[in-house]
Amino acid sequence: MRNCAMFMDFYEATMANAAILQEMGEREAYFDMFFRRVPDDGGFAIMAGLKQLIDNLNELVFTDEDIEYMRAQKLFDDKFLTFLKNFKFSCDVWAIPEGTPIFPKEPILTVKGPICQLFLIETLVLLNINHQSLIATKANRIYRAAQGRAVMEFGARRAHGTDASLFGARAAYIGGCSATSCVKAGEDFGIPVSGTMAHSWVQMFPSEYDAFKAYAEVYPEKSLFLVDTYDTLKSGIPNVIKVANEVLKPLGCRPLGIRIDSGDITYLTKRARKMLDDAGYPDCLICVSNSLDEYLIRDMLMQGAKVDTFGVGERLITASSEAVFGGVYKMAAIEDEKGNVIPKIKLSENTSKITLPGFKQCWRLFDRESGKAIADVITLRDETIDDTKEYVLFDPEHTWKRKTVTYYISRPLQVKIFDKGKLVYNSPDATKIREYKEQQVEALWEEVQRFEKPHKYYVDYSQRLYDLYTEMLSKNSL
Amino acid sequence: MRNCAMFMDFYEATMANAAILQEMGEREAYFDMFFRRVPDDGGFAIMAGLKQLIDNLNELVFTDEDIEYMRAQKLFDDKFLTFLKNFKFSCDVWAIPEGTPIFPKEPILTVKGPICQLFLIETLVLLNINHQSLIATKANRIYRAAQGRAVMEFGARRAHGTDASLFGARAAYIGGCSATSCVKAGEDFGIPVSGTMAHSWVQMFPSEYDAFKAYAEVYPEKSLFLVDTYDTLKSGIPNVIKVANEVLKPLGCRPLGIRIDSGDITYLTKRARKMLDDAGYPDCLICVSNSLDEYLIRDMLMQGAKVDTFGVGERLITASSEAVFGGVYKMAAIEDEKGNVIPKIKLSENTSKITLPGFKQCWRLFDRESGKAIADVITLRDETIDDTKEYVLFDPEHTWKRKTVTYYISRPLQVKIFDKGKLVYNSPDATKIREYKEQQVEALWEEVQRFEKPHKYYVDYSQRLYDLYTEMLSKNSL
Repeated sequence: MRNCAMFMDFYEATMANAAILQEMGEREAYFDMFFRRVPDDGGFAIMAGLKQLIDNLNELVFTDEDIEYMRAQKLFDDKFLTFLKNFKFSCDVWAIPEGTPIFPKEPILTVKGPICQLFLIETLVLLNINHQSLIATKANRIYRAAQGRAVMEFGARRAHGTDASLFGARAAYIGGCSATSCVKAGEDFGIPVSGTMAHSWVQMFPSEYDAFKAYAEVYPEKSLFLVDTYDTLKSGIPNVIKVANEVLKPLGCRPLGIRIDSGDITYLTKRARKMLDDAGYPDCLICVSNSLDEYLIRDMLMQGAKVDTFGVGERLITASSEAVFGGVYKMAAIEDEKGNVIPKIKLSENTSKITLPGFKQCWRLFDRESGKAIADVITLRDETIDDTKEYVLFDPEHTWKRKTVTYYISRPLQVKIFDKGKLVYNSPDATKIREYKEQQVEALWEEVQRFEKPHKYYVDYSQRLYDLYTEMLSKNSL
Repeated sequence: MRNCAMFMDFYEATMANAAILQEMGEREAYFDMFFRRVPDDGGFAIMAGLKQLIDNLNELVFTDEDIEYMRAQKLFDDKFLTFLKNFKFSCDVWAIPEGTPIFPKEPILTVKGPICQLFLIETLVLLNINHQSLIATKANRIYRAAQGRAVMEFGARRAHGTDASLFGARAAYIGGCSATSCVKAGEDFGIPVSGTMAHSWVQMFPSEYDAFKAYAEVYPEKSLFLVDTYDTLKSGIPNVIKVANEVLKPLGCRPLGIRIDSGDITYLTKRARKMLDDAGYPDCLICVSNSLDEYLIRDMLMQGAKVDTFGVGERLITASSEAVFGGVYKMAAIEDEKGNVIPKIKLSENTSKITLPGFKQCWRLFDRESGKAIADVITLRDETIDDTKEYVLFDPEHTWKRKTVTYYISRPLQVKIFDKGKLVYNSPDATKIREYKEQQVEALWEEVQRFEKPHKYYVDYSQRLYDLYTEMLSKNSL
């Protein structure tokens, strides 16, 4: 990992410097990360990126060069530069584990510590979680659209830089992809890698048949042929069958599959399936690619496309239908000079931008019988939802909507990550996170998983949080 | 720079391994990078990302761990693993310099070398140039919409990982932004950094007035206040004026500016401007932010918004309106076993996906009188467009459309970057590239710069290239 200390927005440094000069730098404060809406108007998002944030926070060091750069801005006091020089991350961090379905307004990550530190880590918190949650959420949509067929992430070349390809591949795997084309992601995270041939392989040879033959000779047991360089149905598939019969069969092997990367996939795969079946290769896989996303995959399958695996690139690795995960990082409380914790709220004419005050936790309630998630409840941190007793849910916007739940399991979602700067959490590996994601998404009703106008999952407030919120709202309204 | 050798798609390794085993790995080939359409249906794109690609190619090394990882895939021959171990980049690379306006179909980068090397670098070529060209192109649109007002790039928190924030800031600066909020980008590339305060600064204090006062005391000469935490017009601006009068004036200072981050920017800035003017602060800058892009900026300015500078974040750093720059990397020629260069073409049912064969150059013709760019012409590499003679342009799709140009300057666009693996090009710094971009965009007619249905700039073929192309098309059609 590289040291990412300098990945901050400049205003974080100016605020930290000013806080130190105003002798407020050591005040303990609480910040929450939360988001306001699910990309693509989906029913939920998938938490991801925590591991890389942990790695970043665990090794924050400002080098002499960094400090000289800051000094050269002629804006910062020596006290601040000394603070950077001696920087030691000493905050508490709690977060919802990777792979968990998350919903708007929920504190998905909470940090507590000296405010001059909390200022400086804002960008690292946001960019890691925003990026990977975006891609994991998108990948999960595509994975669900594929209805059990394998989805391979092929997007490295269209990613927004090397980190976006590497960590995007990780997030896509967490979201549900089976493999990646990015070799570095395979090496770093143990994600299965996959890939076969490009058009250039076919172009290297005098004919497509020669190209397939040469490839089959090298990979008789793993021969997957790209069939659309010249003409999928007239040239590509007949050449695959010819090579299967003439090269592979004598070796006791069979063609692993074909890949189609252009043209009308639904039509071509139906024709291809029939040609391969008729030739005696019903086990030859059909892999398709070419600017796919969840909508195209859903529609192709509805129209009866014969596809075994999907290779999904640019629209997954950039989440191009909505390329922003709008997570924000807002102050929820700060100690006053006497050490009392003062809850804080940020108002806005846009009500969706109003923040929730106080040090909070988020609970998920599961029905004991079906195992399905009933609702999430945001509480103050010192509250407990005791699932041996009934609990009254109410809608924070329409408070007359109440529901008493019984026979449920309640689980706090945030877990402790750093304790006064010491890492106390073991990140599971990507495969474990992917399995956990699978269980947790299964606990959501199908109605919440729908692409079009999904049912809105309940995210309610405890009575105490609601009372604090409404009291602060009325006190602060002008 | 980190070593990026393993940022490859898996199929590049399988093809390189197969090429080596088929004793074709050392065949010299030519690949072009080109793109098919301009994002956002714009009239042109801006080339960027070459510097980072150069850094990547200049230090490609496979470590022992990398080779062990590849061996563990149980797919690769020892010959290939030895090739990786001894890997030394030895290709020729030509590219269009960063900051140049580029157009669909043009070879923006050409590589020549042993095909087993050309396979392995595909992903690095594409991801560097695709990412930064995407952001530079988007930034240039936003910069043009701002009509001379400064645009600051504030997107780090919504970027797709740390590289996307760092190199995205660089690309945004090349495209026309004046500054970035990303401190790391300031440190690495000398880009001016900017930033003031977040809502959390205001929340830290018992009142907004106290927050502004504390900030003004620390930065009396650089005080830019965020005014929308509670209520922009009723609280924020009155408090700025009060602090200006009570804190700054006694120190002989004036408020630098205000920032508005929510609400209707057009309305608020008009009211804010009047309040500040009436209070005797007509020099107090108005900076606005909040999910801006070129369309919002254009419309706000049309409606008379009073804005001095724009802070643009998520829609710039992700190019969210179209988050993919679709550059591809295709074989243009390969030597046969006797060393003859054989041009190659890739067909497709989609005619826009057909590639241009042969080793090529791209020329730009400028009118000698106006300095404006007339057209680009793609030629074979051994052709020259001699601007002492008249030249006949023709449209490759409608060949009867011909135009004779006289009194022009012709310039080849691709320059040599690597000579047999040796770097022979000095990358200008980001500021120099930004200035060059400015001149080169100014050479485009305004009609090409329009956002809505821009005039299509001419990208023509030389007669020899056209003849080769049509001959190969007819020979290869099935």
